[in-house]
Amino acid sequence: MSYKLTVLGSSSAIPTVDKNPTAQLLNANERFFLIDCAEGTQVQLRKYKIKFHKINRIFISHLHGDHYFGLIGLISSMHLLGREKELHIYAHPKLKDIIDIQLSAANTELCYPLFFHPLFPEKDAVLFEDKKIKISTFPLKHGIECNGFLFEEKRSARKILKEKIKEYNIPIDKIKGIKNGLDFFTEEDVKILNEELTIENTGSISYAFCSDTKYNEDLLEKIKGATLLYHEATFMQDRKSRAEQTNHSTTIEAATIAKKANVRHLMIGHFSQRYKSSEDLLKETKTVFKNTIVAEQGLTINFSDL
Amino acid sequence: MSYKLTVLGSSSAIPTVDKNPTAQLLNANERFFLIDCAEGTQVQLRKYKIKFHKINRIFISHLHGDHYFGLIGLISSMHLLGREKELHIYAHPKLKDIIDIQLSAANTELCYPLFFHPLFPEKDAVLFEDKKIKISTFPLKHGIECNGFLFEEKRSARKILKEKIKEYNIPIDKIKGIKNGLDFFTEEDVKILNEELTIENTGSISYAFCSDTKYNEDLLEKIKGATLLYHEATFMQDRKSRAEQTNHSTTIEAATIAKKANVRHLMIGHFSQRYKSSEDLLKETKTVFKNTIVAEQGLTINFSDL
Repeated sequence: MSYKLTVLGSSSAIPTVDKNPTAQLLNANERFFLIDCAEGTQVQLRKYKIKFHKINRIFISHLHGDHYFGLIGLISSMHLLGREKELHIYAHPKLKDIIDIQLSAANTELCYPLFFHPLFPEKDAVLFEDKKIKISTFPLKHGIECNGFLFEEKRSARKILKEKIKEYNIPIDKIKGIKNGLDFFTEEDVKILNEELTIENTGSISYAFCSDTKYNEDLLEKIKGATLLYHEATFMQDRKSRAEQTNHSTTIEAATIAKKANVRHLMIGHFSQRYKSSEDLLKETKTVFKNTIVAEQGLTINFSDL
Repeated sequence: MSYKLTVLGSSSAIPTVDKNPTAQLLNANERFFLIDCAEGTQVQLRKYKIKFHKINRIFISHLHGDHYFGLIGLISSMHLLGREKELHIYAHPKLKDIIDIQLSAANTELCYPLFFHPLFPEKDAVLFEDKKIKISTFPLKHGIECNGFLFEEKRSARKILKEKIKEYNIPIDKIKGIKNGLDFFTEEDVKILNEELTIENTGSISYAFCSDTKYNEDLLEKIKGATLLYHEATFMQDRKSRAEQTNHSTTIEAATIAKKANVRHLMIGHFSQRYKSSEDLLKETKTVFKNTIVAEQGLTINFSDL
């Protein structure tokens, strides 16, 4: 059981030779979710040896080019590579028209089923849920409609102790019930109390992704207690007015959100191209929220290390 | 006076870590023309130190992604960089809708004038002409409507000899007339015959760009005698039927076109990803047309060396 996040790109606005705009890959127990998809993302995926066919769900936060211009290329490459599996895209409804018009211009009928799930940016919504994970969305405040995403691992209420399975020879079909609080009866009909067999299953993982947004305390309740929060920090605090003007956040604002939401770790990125190094941005953020890291391109975070 | 062509990308279909799909930059006496614009082209331009603002005209051959998916990113970056100069795009009319829908989704009003010139793929047409250059288009035969382009340097009929300008103290305002065949009268009213002052101005440069196309002898009259012909050669000759099926050409077909059109040099590219090296493709092409080179990514061709 592991969650890993790979930063494929984290710069803002314009791609350069060594800096790609936003794209991240979340590997949630071998299910692969792509979050944003700037121009060049398919090459970044190749660079970091992530096979396209593993990605089944793509989440696009908003329709500024530095967050989605690479999507049509990825969709097309999946087609050229003969993909057969379903692909699900969650994005602003206008993106469907943008995809369709380009496929139509190329006279391309995709060889795999593409399901488009429109986001309605004014409302929170659950986008996907099964026994293992819940993925939801919530509005951000940016110049155009923009969505944040929350990936929450779902765990059973109790965690069964491996040595007890062996000790009492517990059959597989009983394990789920025990994880949910049932007691166990041995072959000799001896009752073993649940509290002997299990411990509380704490520490489920959650990842909150807040791409472009101005400072917004409405976020706090959506992301509270997240294991990791990605929050943009386009400017340093001395450019607070520029941040407001462009619907972005400063370092201190990102840190304040992290602190007030009581998240465990903060990752900042989307720095303005005016900053040649991330050093000062990180330093300033840490004055408010110590557990901060920088979304360096190529970084892979293993949630079990957090 | 110089023409230079830089190959920004020349692979087919899918971009990889070290191979970009089609894009070329023609520097025609310090006027910069971008020809096709696959995903990643703006980064390739940066890599080869070509400033975006120098590009005033962009020519897109057709609407398969490996020839234009990088255009919207380049247009957007030019906007973010505060471009003021006009940009002219020559492409299939559907590309205007594709650009417009994406600018509209981002709520972007470009800060520079963008002029879109629709190509009508069934007809030859002159796209741009002035004293120095003529740029025209002609149809190719591909799965979807597709255009070739011809860039022709315009030279005066005669070339004036520099030493004669000095010898007879010829004023600047007389030079144009002499280049067009007039005689010259000295201050003493002595007539100097044009043939003493000039030589024939031969060897004007022309570059023909034939991106994706099946074998098509209709091209011959359009491109005849070109200094350089770029012609795709997606497959080797043993895959002729695959080439036909996909509306592409083989090495031998590209070479045959070059030979029959009597061009001086042929450049081949757009090789199928099945070929790990271009060596065999080049060798096979040369069996029919010796003056062949490969469109290696990063290659710059100085036409004065041809």
